[in-house]
Amino acid sequence: MTTSVGNRAVDAYAQAWLETDAAARRALLDQCWAEDGVYCDPIGRAVGRQALADHMGGFQAEQPGARVEVVTGVDGHDGYVRFGWRLVAPDGSVALEGIDFGELDSGGALRRVIGFFGPLPPREPAG
Amino acid sequence: MTTSVGNRAVDAYAQAWLETDAAARRALLDQCWAEDGVYCDPIGRAVGRQALADHMGGFQAEQPGARVEVVTGVDGHDGYVRFGWRLVAPDGSVALEGIDFGELDSGGALRRVIGFFGPLPPREPAG
Repeated sequence: MTTSVGNRAVDAYAQAWLETDAAARRALLDQCWAEDGVYCDPIGRAVGRQALADHMGGFQAEQPGARVEVVTGVDGHDGYVRFGWRLVAPDGSVALEGIDFGELDSGGALRRVIGFFGPLPPREPAG
Repeated sequence: MTTSVGNRAVDAYAQAWLETDAAARRALLDQCWAEDGVYCDPIGRAVGRQALADHMGGFQAEQPGARVEVVTGVDGHDGYVRFGWRLVAPDGSVALEGIDFGELDSGGALRRVIGFFGPLPPREPAG
């Protein structure tokens, strides 16, 4: 249940990252993003649909030709999801990989996505 | 900031999974777990310190000699953390690997940990 609902939401969210038309991007977020949904990664934060649409547009404007692509399936349970993504530079090289952890509301929209960059860090020696 | 606070909390949380003395386990959770903190993975859920202490004790009783070990460092930002773990069977083989996503409260205690099992699933073909 979580998985198919989560798949639908994450598919639209992933499309929104790729959509350069502002109105179409906002329409995708209207489908998948809670009105007051929170996006937070190590370098950015956006609260609400329009703020996230603008954040995505800002990324597209700052890095023309770069793409954020969801590259795994959606793993979900109990209203929580995770999925992997990568940032592809205009020359096709992978500039960054990461994982997003998300939470669905009762209507199946994403109400929070927390992004993490890169691989998990190694375990530090106990000190 | 998040990372050192998160490290402290996750260290105590990891110790609690290994602690077979019920009172000592609860004392570890008193240090690192919010009073009404929520733990949720694909097969179990516990709300509050004592419920989580009991959940951990239940795992230890059901799988004697098995260990849940945190095997990565703690990656954190903005009050959110992630870390990797594995379930080691009594014979030393790795029975399961997973990742936990957590959220810290303002006092640096874990107020939510959501666990996921195994690797991320492959991307499904668009349909």
